Amino acid sequence: MKSFEPPRRILMGPGPSDVSPRVLAALARPTIGHLDPAFQGLMEEIKAALARLMNAPSHACLPLPAPGTAGMEAALMNLLEPGDRAVIAVNGQFGERMVDIAGRAGAQVIRVDNAWGEAVDPDKVEVALKGAGAKVLAFVHAETSTGALSDAGALCALAREHGALSVVDCVTSLGGVPVDIDGWGADVVYSGTQKCLSAPPGLSPFAMGLRAREAVSARREKVRNWLLDMNLIMAYWSGEGGRTYHHTAPINALYGLHEALVVLEEEGVAVAHARHRRMHEALAAGLEAAGLRFLASPQHRLPQLNAVLIPDGIDEAAVRARLLGAYSLEIGAGLGPLKGRIWRIGLMGSSATPWHVRLCLTALTDALAAQNYPDLARAALAAAEKRLSD
Amino acid sequence: MKSFEPPRRILMGPGPSDVSPRVLAALARPTIGHLDPAFQGLMEEIKAALARLMNAPSHACLPLPAPGTAGMEAALMNLLEPGDRAVIAVNGQFGERMVDIAGRAGAQVIRVDNAWGEAVDPDKVEVALKGAGAKVLAFVHAETSTGALSDAGALCALAREHGALSVVDCVTSLGGVPVDIDGWGADVVYSGTQKCLSAPPGLSPFAMGLRAREAVSARREKVRNWLLDMNLIMAYWSGEGGRTYHHTAPINALYGLHEALVVLEEEGVAVAHARHRRMHEALAAGLEAAGLRFLASPQHRLPQLNAVLIPDGIDEAAVRARLLGAYSLEIGAGLGPLKGRIWRIGLMGSSATPWHVRLCLTALTDALAAQNYPDLARAALAAAEKRLSD
Repeated sequence: MKSFEPPRRILMGPGPSDVSPRVLAALARPTIGHLDPAFQGLMEEIKAALARLMNAPSHACLPLPAPGTAGMEAALMNLLEPGDRAVIAVNGQFGERMVDIAGRAGAQVIRVDNAWGEAVDPDKVEVALKGAGAKVLAFVHAETSTGALSDAGALCALAREHGALSVVDCVTSLGGVPVDIDGWGADVVYSGTQKCLSAPPGLSPFAMGLRAREAVSARREKVRNWLLDMNLIMAYWSGEGGRTYHHTAPINALYGLHEALVVLEEEGVAVAHARHRRMHEALAAGLEAAGLRFLASPQHRLPQLNAVLIPDGIDEAAVRARLLGAYSLEIGAGLGPLKGRIWRIGLMGSSATPWHVRLCLTALTDALAAQNYPDLARAALAAAEKRLSD
Repeated sequence: MKSFEPPRRILMGPGPSDVSPRVLAALARPTIGHLDPAFQGLMEEIKAALARLMNAPSHACLPLPAPGTAGMEAALMNLLEPGDRAVIAVNGQFGERMVDIAGRAGAQVIRVDNAWGEAVDPDKVEVALKGAGAKVLAFVHAETSTGALSDAGALCALAREHGALSVVDCVTSLGGVPVDIDGWGADVVYSGTQKCLSAPPGLSPFAMGLRAREAVSARREKVRNWLLDMNLIMAYWSGEGGRTYHHTAPINALYGLHEALVVLEEEGVAVAHARHRRMHEALAAGLEAAGLRFLASPQHRLPQLNAVLIPDGIDEAAVRARLLGAYSLEIGAGLGPLKGRIWRIGLMGSSATPWHVRLCLTALTDALAAQNYPDLARAALAAAEKRLSD
């Protein structure tokens, strides 16, 4: 066995996104102990930065020590216990996953189905909540499997109106479009590091409000998960009365998240959102000039996750293989019912630049032309450049 | 918020241990996608290296995407469901944690208590297993909270004799003393990366044999944990019939683990074990020359985790503060009933060198002398040097 030298890739799939040299360098700083006073300072800075980024001044904000799904699991496993009811909106792969996890928590799940590619319909959710006595309403803000953005403010308001706690999956939204916990009145929000924050995968930023913490404290039985039991994690991360040892924090991964948060604050969160929007508009103009169409309708379309319908007669796997082989460019395939029907093109964090837009359009039109699709590279690039220069 | 620059520390606590520059450099290699063909090659190499390291030719070996406790949680949550019985040996903090987690899985727990600092007594375990109809026997091979090593071979044999599956916590043992899954006949074994492998914390090497996999397949209800559900994880890591997407693997952390495994293979696992033993003997000779005594008896003492009794009249927190302040040296405090009674001095992986032994003895005797303890630095170092030169 020899040391592993990864190939140089350009990451424009559904995550991970390109990690900047600054963040990579942070990962390689010397490891210190998880009880070191200096590490505790790092923890406090990360907590505060997450609270600013998510506009959650009164939530407990911290990074869970496992990939984004750990946030989903922590939210549902902590809030739900046998006998509880949960209304879960499903409009893609990650809503489906929520249903699965809520069932493992012992809850009775009331599904609200929406077509994959559409936003969650608040009217349907309201019907489901009415008289259901649900403890939780859970939904995905930005569906990574479809590129659809739902109206988190409207859905959180419905939850509150019907006495339910809201759980909002912001894995793909955080850093790319506004996540506004205070404005939404959201109870629990979680995210991932490998999307618009452009840190490596492996951590799940997590925010929990007071109502949710009270619900966890009032549980009848223990959380069915020790590593993600918020009663235990809060004692470790709270900083009050000395930290209680829980798990050994993933020190170097936290260096990377910290640096990614510094980078984002230097740019400015609103500026980063505008950048994602602008890059999406340029990419979309180019794709449409190449005759390609989106899965999600324009008003519900995520800038950072572009789900593009595969034209008839195109061998989509061959296109992705050519992108990877000739351009070292990774884009994503479709999941579940969208397998073979869409590509997922990410413009996330460090991968949301004009350079990425141009490379993607060049590579994709080249790969399509190799399959007897019209060569529309020039038209696509011209359309994109026009938007980039606006 | 500014970039975080950690202080330079020497890590001789119960983990994390010092991470070598080679492993730190590996962490900083460019991130690639978790479905990239090159990443899948990395996964296969890690699986094979873990199987060699643990002597587990027919077990499924893979790294779970969360700290060491994830291994404990995965083992118990996958094997146990409501109605099952588990015999759990408790001789320290991590046996206690197993009891907690097995309860969360819904199992009925039969505790076998041993004093903290002692090895697990096979006779007591046999009494508990007899006629209990236990599905699982779980115990800690190397108790990080006490420095005691138990006889994994004898305990796994008892499990098999009584029809139970064995779960062995090797978080602190792997890489420091032999872990011999095939020789022991162990069913499930897990470890951590931040101990004798000297990679950063955040991953849990995990091995599961055929009997255990069959037990998971035969469950009546779903595992109470989605992220660690081995049915799902195995489909992701198996490499058979194309990988099924599960979670997004912590790419850069896996670069670090891979490099740590390369480093260990270059040294040779048996050579590394001998090095841990030799460094322990030198440190122990020095500590004893300074009048210090161990918690665990010599025949059950872990070389890599030295639990040292605090002399009467010594302010132990002041000693640790001086080590950290004057020598940048971290050692560990006691946990639970041993809080204030012991220090835990790690000689793990990259922290098991003559340099570390000398620094620790110098710093510790200095800190003790500052509290009117006799200045025995010269005697301690001389005793250690004698063993180092043997």
